[in-house]
Amino acid sequence: MVTRTAGPDVDTTRVAVSTVIFSLRRDPADDRPAVVMPLVRRTRDPYEGLWALPGGWLDLSESLDTAASRTLGETTGLAPSFLEQLYAFGAVDRSPSRVVSIVYWALVRPDEAERAAAEENVAWFDTADLPCLAFDHREIVDYALWRLRSKVGYSRIAHGLLADEFTLAELREVYEAIYSRRLDPANFRRQVENSGTLIPTERFRTGSHRPARLYRYNREVELADRGPLTHSESSRS
Amino acid sequence: MVTRTAGPDVDTTRVAVSTVIFSLRRDPADDRPAVVMPLVRRTRDPYEGLWALPGGWLDLSESLDTAASRTLGETTGLAPSFLEQLYAFGAVDRSPSRVVSIVYWALVRPDEAERAAAEENVAWFDTADLPCLAFDHREIVDYALWRLRSKVGYSRIAHGLLADEFTLAELREVYEAIYSRRLDPANFRRQVENSGTLIPTERFRTGSHRPARLYRYNREVELADRGPLTHSESSRS
Repeated sequence: MVTRTAGPDVDTTRVAVSTVIFSLRRDPADDRPAVVMPLVRRTRDPYEGLWALPGGWLDLSESLDTAASRTLGETTGLAPSFLEQLYAFGAVDRSPSRVVSIVYWALVRPDEAERAAAEENVAWFDTADLPCLAFDHREIVDYALWRLRSKVGYSRIAHGLLADEFTLAELREVYEAIYSRRLDPANFRRQVENSGTLIPTERFRTGSHRPARLYRYNREVELADRGPLTHSESSRS
Repeated sequence: MVTRTAGPDVDTTRVAVSTVIFSLRRDPADDRPAVVMPLVRRTRDPYEGLWALPGGWLDLSESLDTAASRTLGETTGLAPSFLEQLYAFGAVDRSPSRVVSIVYWALVRPDEAERAAAEENVAWFDTADLPCLAFDHREIVDYALWRLRSKVGYSRIAHGLLADEFTLAELREVYEAIYSRRLDPANFRRQVENSGTLIPTERFRTGSHRPARLYRYNREVELADRGPLTHSESSRS
């Protein structure tokens, strides 16, 4: 029999699950989208008062994928369609007790992010202007941003931040937000048109500018979106 | 205080570390290399007598990277230069007790694989002809093979299976072994020469065939070899 103490066992490694969630928010100042993420303010020690990634402990009866979805829902009310394992963080000194964190990452569209219930102690931050984070969460966020930047180049994950139909300018703004730099509109248009990954629709976005054609992703094109495992793991859980 | 029992705690999740190691072995029948991996025969339950990935339990005082290196050395005597985290496996029913396995993958050159001490209960297997594996290790191996095939296309990891200098035929054979199909030699030569990733040397491989020029990788070319994290994690441990 194991006798439980009130605090964490000093000679046990515990498993936690956390999620880095990215979305886009249009900056009212320049009307351009920025990459934003939700953080949860810690209400107890360690690091009480600091901001941390949404997450929680792994339950004995749930898979890692299930724990990621559950803890994300409990802390932020979000249920993203793209939720992928990012990395396991297990440095000895990353927490006062020994904790291995399996970190997931997720993308949510701006309208989903807005719909998400405004949970207590949750706030969205521009990734270019983050507050001081608890534990090694700053290192985790930096790694997730690196993964986002590398992956957006060879997959259609930008789609996770857009509606089903979008203009080329809207797609370009997603890339600009992720890469933190402006892209030449004509070059961008040529590249995506040559890639074969977009299908033009007969619909147009109208508004204050001249009408812009709406596009959607060509799902026939094989892209390195997700490994074979994400599918098999999630079908099991 | 926690009182330890002899067996695994029934209400605790334990963390294990395992490693998938790939190397090449030339098949005497057709003199072509095949992708091979070492497996360890289990000497106790569960799955006694079946083959499993090298690995062991995470110690409280070591990082995940350190645990991967240690358990790999203890079980196989190998110390690969390329050792990268692959994925965390945590399905509820993957073991009789609750175990989350942080899986690493490694590449070792054929001469390193041969130098490795022939440890008891360790044998090398052709990945195309694996025996029955314990736990979910077959699923893990399949995922690692998928990662190897995707990553060899956009990084210089094939280098991890070759000597510092190699002929184009030797490099092509690595790709052929990983993709499990023959590649056209003239097309292959054109592609790698155009990629700028190889530097021709003034040395030649001589033997039964006509002399073949030796090449080495151009380390100036930026390739998506490893994330920023592998570096920061390993410098910490």
